[in-house]
Amino acid sequence: MQLIDDPEVMANWAKKRRRGGETVALVPTMGALHAGHLTLIKLARMHADEVVVSLFVNPIQFGEAKDFTHYPRKLEQDLMQCEALGVDVLFAPSADRVYMKDTSVWVDEELLSRGLCGESRPGHFRGVCTIVLKLLNLVQPDLAVFGEKDLQQLRIIERMVRDLNIPVEILRGKTVRESDGLAMSSRNQRLSEGARLDAVVIYESIQGAKKQVEQGERSVEVLIQAVRDRLVCLPRIVIDYVVVVDDVTLKPIERIHSTALLAIAVKLESIRLIDNDVLRRS
Amino acid sequence: MQLIDDPEVMANWAKKRRRGGETVALVPTMGALHAGHLTLIKLARMHADEVVVSLFVNPIQFGEAKDFTHYPRKLEQDLMQCEALGVDVLFAPSADRVYMKDTSVWVDEELLSRGLCGESRPGHFRGVCTIVLKLLNLVQPDLAVFGEKDLQQLRIIERMVRDLNIPVEILRGKTVRESDGLAMSSRNQRLSEGARLDAVVIYESIQGAKKQVEQGERSVEVLIQAVRDRLVCLPRIVIDYVVVVDDVTLKPIERIHSTALLAIAVKLESIRLIDNDVLRRS
Repeated sequence: MQLIDDPEVMANWAKKRRRGGETVALVPTMGALHAGHLTLIKLARMHADEVVVSLFVNPIQFGEAKDFTHYPRKLEQDLMQCEALGVDVLFAPSADRVYMKDTSVWVDEELLSRGLCGESRPGHFRGVCTIVLKLLNLVQPDLAVFGEKDLQQLRIIERMVRDLNIPVEILRGKTVRESDGLAMSSRNQRLSEGARLDAVVIYESIQGAKKQVEQGERSVEVLIQAVRDRLVCLPRIVIDYVVVVDDVTLKPIERIHSTALLAIAVKLESIRLIDNDVLRRS
Repeated sequence: MQLIDDPEVMANWAKKRRRGGETVALVPTMGALHAGHLTLIKLARMHADEVVVSLFVNPIQFGEAKDFTHYPRKLEQDLMQCEALGVDVLFAPSADRVYMKDTSVWVDEELLSRGLCGESRPGHFRGVCTIVLKLLNLVQPDLAVFGEKDLQQLRIIERMVRDLNIPVEILRGKTVRESDGLAMSSRNQRLSEGARLDAVVIYESIQGAKKQVEQGERSVEVLIQAVRDRLVCLPRIVIDYVVVVDDVTLKPIERIHSTALLAIAVKLESIRLIDNDVLRRS
């Protein structure tokens, strides 16, 4: 496995690969790899000749400096995991090589990014879109893999690919969960033991809503209230949002017609956790 | 020469070319080609195996609906000129194939686009950046050619290429002028006979400023006043701006240290004309 930290070297690698005709898959990450990432990497491995994993904690997508500073960084361990999965290139540039001091060009998504995390984290998706486009341009992959846990991010990136005519196919990786159901996240390791136990209620409340829909509940108001009732039982949890949205537009809906998305964001000891799943009429 | 009107066909053409290893140059235009465009096409022809000329009157970069509606369109004539210059592909998509109705992703430049035309035409450079990035993604060229007449556009596109790590080299094409000095523009053909005669004062006033600088004038205030004095003599001309800016940041400066840019925008019978040149200490 090749470790590249210079964007120029990465771009030259990509140029050679383009000429060579091999297919390339990119898995963009912020490192501190967990089983969720490894699933994305395996998916990439299945679909391309060459797999590039990027590892970059993108400062501009963090609203709070504290969240950025405390975001886990484990380069040694990430390196070994990538090596073991047969990754060809680990691209880990430093922030000052990625953003010039007078950077002035940004990518903005203005519909799908309005609600959910976009509302709670102003500027977050500008940061995400801009860095993902930069990585796509540097690596020039045929495929790029993103996880369904970051639902809104995934949909916004798919929209960006469509609207900017980016020549890449986006693969969706299923959410991977801990044995108790908590969605894998690099932030989970920052939770105290008590908070970690509480965190499972996010998953449980989603499962509860899924069951209610299967049993005939159609009112979004009723579904959301049931989720909130479960979450507020745990005093460590502060709800950011609980929403049911249209699968395509990500706009809130009032009744479940066929399928919809339930999405949740909470803070647990000031650590932000998100999760989502499809609500489907049986 | 191949005429392509479908973005998907264009993208497939680009994909094949990438695999084949030929170099591709793109010349983005809004059609109504004049000698200025032809110079850009010849420059492209000299530097690449395959030349693609795009022809798209981009609705989102026009502030005024009237300017968009009246922008000259001469597909037949453009086609013949491209053919004669050995262009390989003329890419002329329709607007509804380029922009989906629920388009929501845009590219914004936030420093270089603040003054000059960006100030007079809000949203203009968002339109320019977005369409240029889309064209670069569809055509995947090694080189793209832009004219120096649209100075601010050129600099903003160069900045976009840098900040978004777009794998393309930008070539600058010199401004081509009519025999009396008026910078070539598709809009020139909309001028009445009288206005066409007046228009030469734009060039003449720039030449005057260049001479003043050569003769030792360093005060930008003095230079601008001299240009304005010439322009206001002609009652058909309405000045939008006369500015002297730093060559890199495009910010207004007060004194000429080594080189600077003089840029002018006026309306003549409501037709917007721009021009610029370098002021250089001898």
